Amino acid sequence: MEPLVNKIITRFVSNQTEQIDDLIAVERKIRIFVNDEEIISLSASPIYLKELIIGFLMTEGILKGDWCPEKISIEENERETNVKVSLEGFISLEGKTITSGCMASVSFLNDLKSTIQDELRIDTERLFKLFKDFQLRSDLYRTTGCMHAAALAERDEILFIAEDVGRHNAVDKVIGWGLLNKITFKGKIMLVSGRISSEMVLKVAKWKIPIIVSRAAPTSLAIEIGEKCGLTIIGFLRGNRFNVYSHSQRLIK
Amino acid sequence: MEPLVNKIITRFVSNQTEQIDDLIAVERKIRIFVNDEEIISLSASPIYLKELIIGFLMTEGILKGDWCPEKISIEENERETNVKVSLEGFISLEGKTITSGCMASVSFLNDLKSTIQDELRIDTERLFKLFKDFQLRSDLYRTTGCMHAAALAERDEILFIAEDVGRHNAVDKVIGWGLLNKITFKGKIMLVSGRISSEMVLKVAKWKIPIIVSRAAPTSLAIEIGEKCGLTIIGFLRGNRFNVYSHSQRLIK
Repeated sequence: MEPLVNKIITRFVSNQTEQIDDLIAVERKIRIFVNDEEIISLSASPIYLKELIIGFLMTEGILKGDWCPEKISIEENERETNVKVSLEGFISLEGKTITSGCMASVSFLNDLKSTIQDELRIDTERLFKLFKDFQLRSDLYRTTGCMHAAALAERDEILFIAEDVGRHNAVDKVIGWGLLNKITFKGKIMLVSGRISSEMVLKVAKWKIPIIVSRAAPTSLAIEIGEKCGLTIIGFLRGNRFNVYSHSQRLIK
Repeated sequence: MEPLVNKIITRFVSNQTEQIDDLIAVERKIRIFVNDEEIISLSASPIYLKELIIGFLMTEGILKGDWCPEKISIEENERETNVKVSLEGFISLEGKTITSGCMASVSFLNDLKSTIQDELRIDTERLFKLFKDFQLRSDLYRTTGCMHAAALAERDEILFIAEDVGRHNAVDKVIGWGLLNKITFKGKIMLVSGRISSEMVLKVAKWKIPIIVSRAAPTSLAIEIGEKCGLTIIGFLRGNRFNVYSHSQRLIK
């Protein structure tokens, strides 16, 4: 399924109107079943679905350890997309509330003892170059103004970019891609187009990615978590400037 | 509690650094208890909490009918804010999954039979003026670049503006304000700063508000719902132009 769809809309300029053919971001209901038990539905762009599901389920701790991508099947009908995962030894979640987006777990925050010990250092010129490349390559974002982008990068290059109508989904897809391709997250950088909330930081911290960079701002709780767990949070990267909100030791001039 | 907090951060411009005193948007865990049963936690800005809780619980259908604002109490500690609602006749939700944000209910979408029949018409000049006023008055949004704003308006004036680190929360606050003040939603307009997802449209459609306006774009699913339920969706309102994605009959030149 395509992530964009054409649609005739009405454009008003001052008090003139015209019909134009516009590109709209597709938002799709993605229902996730594990061993035929529906565990959650997400609202997402219908691309990189395996990456989304693996990234989401592994980050939330619903799937653990090794798994086989071939045990994931995707079925689409007119209204929604069903992703089915078959797993041996999966414990039913019946009655347990699974949440996503906008609702980081408070208990995880209290339990956040592990710190990110990563020797990665990056100089400002490399960072500006990486982020410029990220923005140039976020095609859907630029086309529709209605998508978010996230990317996994090394110091010198971007490894993978994902886009989605949901901020958190884009990050889940990037993490899922890393897991599916057995990429180590050590020494990597997460680039994101949107604001940095606590949920976003918890996802990145879970995989011990040492740096997150955005063109937007972090929230107070995101900074608190970043400080506590050793994550470098960089925001408002625009042109040749940015702000560092936590663990600035990883930046070199 | 204040919605903004001061923090010393490091600003890099080219390869120069300076310490600056920055304003950060406060993100707070809000745990909601009904008759001492915790039903959900939201991540939100700590302002207009009663409006948030009433708007959220009523829109989700967890609370129904009449209620008394004095039955809501708010307790804050260092880490989180607990909102307690005491209700007679409330049925326990134990075991039922309650979701918020990013996850509109598919069943609601299938059941969406009611259409918004509202005679509201608005001319483009009034709309431009309303939205300009909305943007000028979204103080926290402009100060931090990390907040979303939503407002309830009549044709000629804005009635109430709410801001929040979460897009959906800002809309819930506006709806909660309307409910608390016994404002009819007939003939009203919802103004929002962020993208229009299906979740956003479902919230507005639930209360039969006939027009939603944003400076950003809607998703495909938001438009589908808008068309089906008689909601006028206006996006990309910038300067003297905008796009209409559904039910353009409410616009007059």
